[in-house]
Amino acid sequence: MTAKEFTLGQLATRLGATLKGDSELLITGLATLQDAGAGQLSFLANAQYRKYLANTQAAAVLLTEADAEGFPGNALIVANPYLAYAELSHAFDRKPQGVVGVHPSALVAADASIDPTASIGAYAVIESGAQIAAGVTISAHCFVGARSVIGEGGWLAPRVTLYHDVRIGRNVVIQSGAVIGGEGFGFANEKGVWQKIAQIGGVLIGDNVEIGANTTVDRGALSDTVLGNGVKLDNQIMIAHNVQVGDNTAMAGCVGISGSTKIGKNCMIAGGVGMVGHIEVCDGVFVTGMTMVTRSITEPGSYSSGTAMQPANEWRKSAARIRQLDDMAKRLQQLEKQLAAVTSNGKASSDA
Amino acid sequence: MTAKEFTLGQLATRLGATLKGDSELLITGLATLQDAGAGQLSFLANAQYRKYLANTQAAAVLLTEADAEGFPGNALIVANPYLAYAELSHAFDRKPQGVVGVHPSALVAADASIDPTASIGAYAVIESGAQIAAGVTISAHCFVGARSVIGEGGWLAPRVTLYHDVRIGRNVVIQSGAVIGGEGFGFANEKGVWQKIAQIGGVLIGDNVEIGANTTVDRGALSDTVLGNGVKLDNQIMIAHNVQVGDNTAMAGCVGISGSTKIGKNCMIAGGVGMVGHIEVCDGVFVTGMTMVTRSITEPGSYSSGTAMQPANEWRKSAARIRQLDDMAKRLQQLEKQLAAVTSNGKASSDA
Amino acid sequence: MTAKEFTLGQLATRLGATLKGDSELLITGLATLQDAGAGQLSFLANAQYRKYLANTQAAAVLLTEADAEGFPGNALIVANPYLAYAELSHAFDRKPQGVVGVHPSALVAADASIDPTASIGAYAVIESGAQIAAGVTISAHCFVGARSVIGEGGWLAPRVTLYHDVRIGRNVVIQSGAVIGGEGFGFANEKGVWQKIAQIGGVLIGDNVEIGANTTVDRGALSDTVLGNGVKLDNQIMIAHNVQVGDNTAMAGCVGISGSTKIGKNCMIAGGVGMVGHIEVCDGVFVTGMTMVTRSITEPGSYSSGTAMQPANEWRKSAARIRQLDDMAKRLQQLEKQLAAVTSNGKASSDA
Repeated sequence: MTAKEFTLGQLATRLGATLKGDSELLITGLATLQDAGAGQLSFLANAQYRKYLANTQAAAVLLTEADAEGFPGNALIVANPYLAYAELSHAFDRKPQGVVGVHPSALVAADASIDPTASIGAYAVIESGAQIAAGVTISAHCFVGARSVIGEGGWLAPRVTLYHDVRIGRNVVIQSGAVIGGEGFGFANEKGVWQKIAQIGGVLIGDNVEIGANTTVDRGALSDTVLGNGVKLDNQIMIAHNVQVGDNTAMAGCVGISGSTKIGKNCMIAGGVGMVGHIEVCDGVFVTGMTMVTRSITEPGSYSSGTAMQPANEWRKSAARIRQLDDMAKRLQQLEKQLAAVTSNGKASSDA
Repeated sequence: MTAKEFTLGQLATRLGATLKGDSELLITGLATLQDAGAGQLSFLANAQYRKYLANTQAAAVLLTEADAEGFPGNALIVANPYLAYAELSHAFDRKPQGVVGVHPSALVAADASIDPTASIGAYAVIESGAQIAAGVTISAHCFVGARSVIGEGGWLAPRVTLYHDVRIGRNVVIQSGAVIGGEGFGFANEKGVWQKIAQIGGVLIGDNVEIGANTTVDRGALSDTVLGNGVKLDNQIMIAHNVQVGDNTAMAGCVGISGSTKIGKNCMIAGGVGMVGHIEVCDGVFVTGMTMVTRSITEPGSYSSGTAMQPANEWRKSAARIRQLDDMAKRLQQLEKQLAAVTSNGKASSDA
Repeated sequence: MTAKEFTLGQLATRLGATLKGDSELLITGLATLQDAGAGQLSFLANAQYRKYLANTQAAAVLLTEADAEGFPGNALIVANPYLAYAELSHAFDRKPQGVVGVHPSALVAADASIDPTASIGAYAVIESGAQIAAGVTISAHCFVGARSVIGEGGWLAPRVTLYHDVRIGRNVVIQSGAVIGGEGFGFANEKGVWQKIAQIGGVLIGDNVEIGANTTVDRGALSDTVLGNGVKLDNQIMIAHNVQVGDNTAMAGCVGISGSTKIGKNCMIAGGVGMVGHIEVCDGVFVTGMTMVTRSITEPGSYSSGTAMQPANEWRKSAARIRQLDDMAKRLQQLEKQLAAVTSNGKASSDA
């Protein structure tokens, strides 16, 4: 693949930006204000980086009108430099495109339906009744189970597993190693022995969803596990059977959501959070990293658990004291009573 | 695959249940009392759902004799409706069955032994000396390493890796992305540089074990890592080298067990729990979610750690206070001494 | 593969050890002092196992000169028995070696460069412009993306994914299921909807790095994600985009490092630790298991967070009390004031 390059004028047109400076300047990449060098376009999206603007070596910078005033270099003036950067990032992406058509080594079931504009990679296996829509890329080593459906414009990295009966909307991106539709953890305990419960639901995934590397989304036990439109899941996340995630909710890496929990729309779940099963989290909730969510959340806002990091020798004392807390609380209460008695005695005696 | 359907009479026979109602009624699926509609069989397994029984649209319901009394609809009367549901779930499972025989694209070493009733899927690779028993399914893209053994009736989802010298019992289910027998984290530190220790043990897995998607079970350093009979591991679990897990112990998602730890039988380890290495946990222990287990457990029972979730602004105060706890405890003790002095002074003076 | 066996004399030569006993003794394996039997070599590396030395059934033992004194059996005397064991472990490793050359089923792009001494396994896919150096093993089902580079002596287990533009140094080991170069979690929020930011950086990995099973290392957003020389990552670890990890830092399983965090050299990060993004951890830091690292660490030493495990009924009390801590702290302060008043009053009155 040849390097990606554009003139500053071309990028201005693409963004609908106001160009200040040399429209013929060749831009070959993107970088931060601190790192940018010749040929690189940068952006100022956060006030705390404004200090780097004066000395940046960037060939040009994406700026708001206010920040562009007094900036002597080349600039593309836009309302939101971060969104403009997000958009241009795709122009400079060297991610290889899948070749349209079915690779000769791919195994596609006779009754699977593959749109002619889709790309099916090497050693991919597409099972009976699967449907792959227009513009979809199925990379090498992917497995698409029976009757699974992938909507227009989807992109599966190499080595993604979809079990049977997984239905995916449009423009969904799934990173390598993700497993969608695995059999959830359903067992009935019979005198100490676990009897398996077949997981006969599927998975239903909306449009514009992204699923990270090695993330697992289990199929439903009876009805479907559901990810709404615009849901973004980072790597190494575990979504158990019959979880429902509302539109545009984002989860960072290593989150675990237990079975049948229902999460609202526009939530942000930070890395390492765990949620127990069968609870509900309302719309607009932010849960900070590594929080243990053991009950439903009914009010939007930020929630946390855990303790702050300390040097280990101090932490050992804190941890020991936490185990004494109930005792401490009772002693505190006792002291309050005693002191009240002393004080009233004192008063009584001074009154006397 | 055609839809699965049975008459209510057929299902009664299968379960040995008492049929109340229309034995010719066609049952095409399973659903909860709230969700069930025409043709669907439901079940009442938990008293808190009894309120849904009166108005369920289910075609028939699995009930205990007591719950069936007064229920006007079709019913299958069984001793344990949840176990009956567990059993019937398999009848309605649309999971595709592997085709018996070796797929033409599978690569099987000349000296590997494959039972003629086993199913070896597309692009599977079976290495030298491996043994695959009767009725085993190895799905597409699986890798079975040298000398590894899979007992009768096992089922490997697409894309499972078994390294060499992994021995697996009967009726073991392994979900997609699981890695069994990877090289554990063994390094000797030589003046700051880590020298690798070859992991020359294997993995020994009992009968009726289930291993979830993207779970990893490392091979032993010297002797084997061991999972007992009936062990159930959910997704994204990490079992380090030389861990031993007792029969019928179940672990929910995202659990991490460090090297050489030994867990007893019939334990339940909830999601996100972490255990340090070289400890022992006795039989019959329940560890709640996200608990940090840093010492051996010698008594059956329930164990926990962590703090309860709070709104973030309140949590910040708690977290700050925890760091002051040792100081608080000392001040509390000081107060007790002072108050005792005051009280005795007071007494003295009032005595005086 | 035939069993590995060596005479004690051969092993002494290999280690440069002083042999005490029978140089013709045949050694067929390694085991701990407690487990070792006929033909097995053991080692004493930790004083707490010295009690097992007297009764070990080991054919021979790796010992320091001091420990060898008075030991009546066969011994190899070395300066550091643990390092000697680490070295010999490789001699007894039955891990199959890759066959040199490209497997007929592997798909190698015409412009990829494969050293003739490399081994490319079954169904591996090597994309355009990739470079595979001398002595590298790429096992079955691996995917090596466009322009990715693997230095001399590297070993990839079956089913490893490298995306495009991943550059790996010499002698790097990557376990099954690992995903290197996945697209990091980069989204710009536009009125509640997440807009994807293309991840146009790569991954740069030094020499002698080990990456565990199902670990994910995301590519950089703009510049590279970087793992230094000698870094060791266990299983199920999540390294987000633009993280930098210093030389010889080791991380145990299930660690999650958020974006752009920079970790120093010779750190040890225990299992389940989580770090927020955009912080710096200096050289020589040890973080204990499951610690939540929410701020930079500027001093070497040990750091911890979390609470100690308790029986669940006691834990419930502690957890409830933690939520009252701010209130308790204020009441404690109040008591101190009141008691000071009482005491001074008391003094006053006793003075009076």
